[in-house]
Amino acid sequence: MDNVKTKYFTFAGSPDKFVLESGEILRDVTLAYETYGELNAERSNAILILHAFTGDAHAAGYHEGDKKPGWWDDMIGSGKAFDTDNYFVICSNVIGGCSGSTGPSSINKATGKPYGLDFPFITIGDMVNAQKALIDELGIDKLLSVAGGSMGGMQALSWLVKYPDRIRSAIPIATSAKHSPQQIAFHEVGRQSIMSDPNWNGGDYYGSEGPDKGLAIARMIGHITYMSDVSMEEKFGRAQKEGKLPSKFDARFEVENYLRYRGDSFVKRFDANSYLYLTKAMDFYDASSGEPLDTALHGAKAKVLVIAFKSDWLYPAYHSKEIVKACKRAGVDVSYCEIESTYGHDAFLLEAVEEAHLISHFLAKAAKNKEHK
Amino acid sequence: MDNVKTKYFTFAGSPDKFVLESGEILRDVTLAYETYGELNAERSNAILILHAFTGDAHAAGYHEGDKKPGWWDDMIGSGKAFDTDNYFVICSNVIGGCSGSTGPSSINKATGKPYGLDFPFITIGDMVNAQKALIDELGIDKLLSVAGGSMGGMQALSWLVKYPDRIRSAIPIATSAKHSPQQIAFHEVGRQSIMSDPNWNGGDYYGSEGPDKGLAIARMIGHITYMSDVSMEEKFGRAQKEGKLPSKFDARFEVENYLRYRGDSFVKRFDANSYLYLTKAMDFYDASSGEPLDTALHGAKAKVLVIAFKSDWLYPAYHSKEIVKACKRAGVDVSYCEIESTYGHDAFLLEAVEEAHLISHFLAKAAKNKEHK
Repeated sequence: MDNVKTKYFTFAGSPDKFVLESGEILRDVTLAYETYGELNAERSNAILILHAFTGDAHAAGYHEGDKKPGWWDDMIGSGKAFDTDNYFVICSNVIGGCSGSTGPSSINKATGKPYGLDFPFITIGDMVNAQKALIDELGIDKLLSVAGGSMGGMQALSWLVKYPDRIRSAIPIATSAKHSPQQIAFHEVGRQSIMSDPNWNGGDYYGSEGPDKGLAIARMIGHITYMSDVSMEEKFGRAQKEGKLPSKFDARFEVENYLRYRGDSFVKRFDANSYLYLTKAMDFYDASSGEPLDTALHGAKAKVLVIAFKSDWLYPAYHSKEIVKACKRAGVDVSYCEIESTYGHDAFLLEAVEEAHLISHFLAKAAKNKEHK
Repeated sequence: MDNVKTKYFTFAGSPDKFVLESGEILRDVTLAYETYGELNAERSNAILILHAFTGDAHAAGYHEGDKKPGWWDDMIGSGKAFDTDNYFVICSNVIGGCSGSTGPSSINKATGKPYGLDFPFITIGDMVNAQKALIDELGIDKLLSVAGGSMGGMQALSWLVKYPDRIRSAIPIATSAKHSPQQIAFHEVGRQSIMSDPNWNGGDYYGSEGPDKGLAIARMIGHITYMSDVSMEEKFGRAQKEGKLPSKFDARFEVENYLRYRGDSFVKRFDANSYLYLTKAMDFYDASSGEPLDTALHGAKAKVLVIAFKSDWLYPAYHSKEIVKACKRAGVDVSYCEIESTYGHDAFLLEAVEEAHLISHFLAKAAKNKEHK
């Protein structure tokens, strides 16, 4: 793949406004996205990739000068699961985020200053509505597939429920139709950690030092939940740093050093307010708005492939099985696979071989299916 | 049980010093403890109860004026598992803590000020050495049993390894011979949260506002790990508070409110520096100091009852099974029971009925056993 560039789509409505599910209005909405491969003449080979919580539009290939490729480069490219020789792959960022799309760190044109907490609450449905506007803009009537893990899986589910006529298949991975109290709880301590940092200042910290310490701790908590007991044992065991420590409670165990490092590097690339908004969007997400999930899925015409990972305790397999069960009850054509992996929730980013195998076959079938229709 | 009172034992050595496993010396060490029941004439019916991380010496009965009894009142008392009609039950607090025993919030006589971070690192072995001095003081040559959950279980294991001639049985519950990196990681984010609070001030905060926010967040993380996915689902589900919230990121879900409440009430009773010292003591604990555990257990003569709980993912049953396996290899007379429970790690405090059944039989046998020797 040649070097890739992130593109930006700014909604040009008339008036230029985007109505959120809450009824609140956002103006001048921009969505960051990337595309890989070519849209075919029938415009029938487009696949939308949906990223997880702290991901971005840069899913594959290299930005000029970068040493590391996009976050799902193992899965997207020539001959890979999302094969750019056959498919036109789009990866869309989300509103509320901080990676080129409109979010709390964006400038509010009404005030000339960053929104901060004046930014309205956004939902998974709002993210999907914005993506739908992008797909319209790209002139695509029907997506061959929507696919993503974790928060990306929620968006895939939301596409399935909201726009059944616009997708031919959906691949929700390592996700949940709604968060359990344990999932909410982990997010909540992350939020509390950010909001307890005096530098957070009620969300108004742009232009000065931000709540870096609070955000780093939130990320450390996140990292523990993304790994598994086994993968941490394999990666770190009880390995310790030798020698005298600079101070009494410095990190002695490798696992402590790793978490501190990951926390500290995260604050360089992520906005603390986006952390608050996106975790709230996930926590409030309920694919069926309190109804039985199969009711919400009635009318879904897409084929669905649900993937879960055995050691994922943050989005445990039973959450995926509930989605599968509801699909079956609703008469949706669904397949399910639980991949053996010790990587925990991170597995959806790391178990590329088995995932690729499942997804490439599923996509080939979905593409063929359409030819007969 | 009549009202109980906490007692205090201040070491009177000559000189009055307590040598820690690190070689450092503590002076004027005080240990808080309570006793229930009567020591028999042969001094053969004493049981030492060892508390978990944030527990204290007040295990049973009521302090004058209190509405709530001690933390293990379900298990200790007339006719209960630790039957005060038959046994003399001692519950000892730990050094390093903040509930009446010498710890970082105690006054350092050398300076006239609280120790803060001048307090030396302490180990599980140091806690046990201090308890052994108390047992000596009480004139007890051999304990009928040592029993405790979580950090208390580590102390029970430590008694087994360090003082095989001083105990006739041991009951380590919901514990581990050494922490896994996941257990260390959860502790580490708690410590980071405390140390990132500007009020922590390098541990020197006594007499001014302490790191309450950081400590509350540490406790919130702890609470999530003490419960289970299932118990949180049963207790909270996705129940939400109705009405307008005072501010945007206030707690909407019941589980959020619960965690905030538990975090805030914890800071009223616990010292942040003790949080650091005790979690480090647990993280560094290794029952066999890097050797195979069965090597460390050779020479242990006590009967052992190991108890684990199915839904405990913080101290998972496989940790207990490793203790059992090592006991068997070392020729120690060991029994194991995994109790079905949805309460997670908290189960050792909550599943009193089944626990009592196992323990009362085990103790009766241990007491009888002695009569034949």
